[in-house]
Formats: sequence, structure tokens, C-alpha cells
Amino acid sequence: MPAPLPPDTIVYAHGDFRPLAQASYALEERGVLFADGVYEVVRYDRGKPFALKPHADRLANSLDGIDLPGLDADEVADLSNELVKRAGHDHCKVYWQVTRGDLGPRDFLIQTPTDFKPNLTLIAYPTPPLQRDATALPPSGGAIIVEDCRWTKCWIKSLMLQPASLAKTAAHKAGAVEAIFEREKPGTTESHITEGSSTNVFIVRDGQLLTHPNDGWVLPGITRDVLLDAAQNELGLPFAEQTFTAADLKAADEVFVCSTTQLTAITSVHGQPIGDGQPGPITTAVNKAYTERILAD
Amino acid sequence: MPAPLPPDTIVYAHGDFRPLAQASYALEERGVLFADGVYEVVRYDRGKPFALKPHADRLANSLDGIDLPGLDADEVADLSNELVKRAGHDHCKVYWQVTRGDLGPRDFLIQTPTDFKPNLTLIAYPTPPLQRDATALPPSGGAIIVEDCRWTKCWIKSLMLQPASLAKTAAHKAGAVEAIFEREKPGTTESHITEGSSTNVFIVRDGQLLTHPNDGWVLPGITRDVLLDAAQNELGLPFAEQTFTAADLKAADEVFVCSTTQLTAITSVHGQPIGDGQPGPITTAVNKAYTERILAD
Repeated sequence: MPAPLPPDTIVYAHGDFRPLAQASYALEERGVLFADGVYEVVRYDRGKPFALKPHADRLANSLDGIDLPGLDADEVADLSNELVKRAGHDHCKVYWQVTRGDLGPRDFLIQTPTDFKPNLTLIAYPTPPLQRDATALPPSGGAIIVEDCRWTKCWIKSLMLQPASLAKTAAHKAGAVEAIFEREKPGTTESHITEGSSTNVFIVRDGQLLTHPNDGWVLPGITRDVLLDAAQNELGLPFAEQTFTAADLKAADEVFVCSTTQLTAITSVHGQPIGDGQPGPITTAVNKAYTERILAD
Repeated sequence: MPAPLPPDTIVYAHGDFRPLAQASYALEERGVLFADGVYEVVRYDRGKPFALKPHADRLANSLDGIDLPGLDADEVADLSNELVKRAGHDHCKVYWQVTRGDLGPRDFLIQTPTDFKPNLTLIAYPTPPLQRDATALPPSGGAIIVEDCRWTKCWIKSLMLQPASLAKTAAHKAGAVEAIFEREKPGTTESHITEGSSTNVFIVRDGQLLTHPNDGWVLPGITRDVLLDAAQNELGLPFAEQTFTAADLKAADEVFVCSTTQLTAITSVHGQPIGDGQPGPITTAVNKAYTERILAD
């Protein structure tokens, strides 16, 4: 298990910067009672944020998606930078969380006072420095495929992560590093791969990158966008945002998943190797481009 | 907005009974970070719980459903009774909440220590006494029908209530009292009514009661079971647990919804009256049987 943060870790909570030991939620916090909140995770390398504005913009979209007013996402980004400065981290990820807060006795009906302010929490977690050798092989591991039982608005980065957390845990119990969701959407009669429990999924087939379209059934991944941009403008890799099946994934030449924290080569699915069971050349090239962008930013 | 509970309200939290003002959650509580918890609401009338054992059994099922070990649901029921006694309430509802607690730095992967205990919270909310005149008309109001965007395991009474809370709020904005979900399930090509944002839904058609089967797409409602039992063994009302469409609901002779706290006649949908726009005779008879069971219990 990861070591707990020291109690004097500086976080942002209750409207200011304070030690973790002096931060908490009220018992009737709607973030608990109704999972009524959204979040972001932003990576910092050498004290600098990566893709800060896209994260702020996505937070604003998520807040709109759950009708949660009263917060300027760009101010959250500024507070995130301030937290990293105060904490003195070179390498970290900052967790941004916005919940509807404590609105009194538990009630499905949302009734907000005129002076309503959402409850903003920021926690910085130190991370290992990025692998500086961009030519190194990316981290790798196996995956399992599980039914996507989540809600239908996966474009909102909601706190409703219970099934994602259970899926990730099931993957680890199976000796894998990620659970990849497959789902039969309404109006269709075939299941498709959507995304991973905390990642977007790419496959490589005949030299082409494929990933699920940004149609609301997956999170509009920021690293996903960075990788597609690198494929188009830097690597000259053909790609398509289109759905594919679990069979397509298992038969792919390469598979990888990505999140804010890293790109991971998926070298087996349910124990069956993908390609030759090693991170493939396109995965490695994409990871190199990604690493260089972070180092250059 | 409902008045806040006084800070000296006795709750169960942190493993004992204490004033609300001395109860909180840790910042890394998984109940917030991952909506990683389940709940129940139990009604008390004249200091006595109604259907306590079914609530404890359903809590145990929900805990199994999210692989959350370490809690005896019958002990939760005992603590609930003790809370009501200490609070001195005659009429109340008690909210039971079990979350995975604070397991250290935020991680989708669930890793629990060997001495793991879930985080149990109990809050008692005073309620108005039950309408003692069992022959009185039930409360009534309108409903709206909205797309069921929730996850697919609605048999688990999960904290992932964000869409339910937003749906209830949309209903109230439309002048209605409940939002009723309709969903096209995988493998089907037609939408059916599932349940309400915080209720089970019944329609009356040609003298027969219809409600969605307990097949995992709805919460196995305890009041739902009580009403079906009353229909069968007391009222001699024909009923079927079968799906029906939004069109069926709109064309029904009567519609009502039920939860632990009350049965409500739905007298209009999107402003169009159901039947003659008044609580119907079967709804009223069912409500009478329900009220008598609570008064007799």
C-alpha cells in the first residue's frame, strides 16, 4: 500500500491552503451522499504543469455537465500552481475536486442558497520524475476486458468512480495493470471497446492508430488529444477515431492505454499476448513523442 | 431549503455516537474520491423501525455487490435503533452509509490493510408523523420522464446518485415531484420505464398493478415488496412484475411511486393528467394497506 501523506502536507481546502490534518468534509457533504462532484488530475514536471488550460477547460465542461455553478476553472488552475509552489514539488500530480458541498439535510433535490460556493479541494501527490530517456521502452503490462457498467455520460469527469475502481482492482487481482471496458450501447447490437478504467485505449492495426471517438461514451482524454496531435503533425501516423471490438483489440498488432500520468503498452489481454508480447514500435514512437512534449513544455 | 441539523445532533460516526459538529470525513475518504460506498434509509414510526431486517439484508447485498467486507449489517441495524433511542425521536428516517474510508493516497486500485474496517455513518432525520387516517388520499404530484443514464447495477444501493439527484431537481424545476427513468437496455430495441429517481414505479392498467421486475435494473424496493404483498394477500389485486413503456405509463389508469418514506400518487406526466388527474381508487387502497402496516408494525 502507498504510504500516507504526512499530516503536515499542504492542501487546498475550506477556501485556503492548510495542512492535510486540518482539512476534512462535513458529514452531509454532497460529494459523499450523492457523488455530487467532478475532478481533474494535472501532472507537473520540473514544477511546471502540462496541458493546464485543457484541464481547466475540461473541468469547466464537467461542471456544466452537472449544473454546478460558482467556480472559475482558470482560478482553480492558478490555485493548483500556487499549491505546487508552496509544496515545493518538482514532480507531482495535482488532484482537483469540486463538490456541491454541505447543503444541509440529505435531499435528492438540489437547493442552493444565493451565496452558494462549491467545495474545492486540491491535493498534490509527489510522483517519480518522468523517464528522461525518451527512447526508452514505455512501461507495459497486461489488461483484462470487462463489461462497461458505468453511467452513459462518461464525457463528464464525475466522482462516480466506484465501477472503475472495482474494475482496476479486478485487473490487478488477475495480474494485469488495466481493465478495459466494452459496452453495447443503446440502439446497437454489438459491443465495442470504450476506454480503460482510468485511461483511453488505442490499438494499432496495419500501421494505423485507432481510438474510440469523442462522442460522450469516453472521457475526452487530454493525453489522448496530445497523442493524436503527435501522430498527425509529428509522426505522420495514420489514425482514425472509430469504434472497435474486443476481438479487434485482441487481434491488434499493438495496444496501449494513456492517462495524464503515463502511457502504458498493453502486451497481453487475459494472458494472451498482443503481437509478440512486447511494447511495439509504434507504441514506443508515440511514447517518445509524448515524453518529448512533456520535457519541452 | 430545509433547516440544517443542530450541531449537537447525535450521529454515529468515527466508531461511536457523537455530536454532528464532531463528525467529519478525511480528505482522502474513498466515499468522496470514488463514490465508493452504499447506503440505506430506514423509517421509524413511534420510535419503532419498519422493515428493519429487509433493510439490513439489502445493505449486506449492496456491500457484497461492491466487495466491501468487514461489517455485519445486523449490527448496523442495532446501532440504528440505539441512535434513535439516544436521539429520542418518535418519527424519523435513519440514513445508513458505509464507505471504504480513507485508505491513503488516491488510487483506483483498492488495497486494504489486514485490520480494515469500513467507515459507517448513521444520521437520524426527524420526519412528520405518518398520516394516521389510513383512508385519507395519498400525497400526489406530477412526474417527468427522463433518460436513465445511470450505471447498469441499480440493484446495488450505491452512493453514485449524481444523475438521480439531477433528475429529481429537473423534476422540481418542471413543477413535478418525481423524475421517472426510461432506458433502452443492451440487447433490446425499445425503451422501458425502470424506476424513479428515488422511488419504484407502479402503474394500474385494467385493474392490474404493474411494476418493473427485480432483474438488477431497479432497486429491489422494500416498500415495493410490502405493496406487492399487500396486493396479493390483503387486497386481492392482480399484479405482474413486468416491464412497460413510457406510452403505457401515460395511458395508465393510475400511476404511483413509492419509497421508504412515502407512497405518492402521480397524477400527471409532463403536465398531461393520468386518468382523471386525481389519486385513483387502487392507489388509495394500496396506500391505505401500506399505512395500516406501518401503524400495526
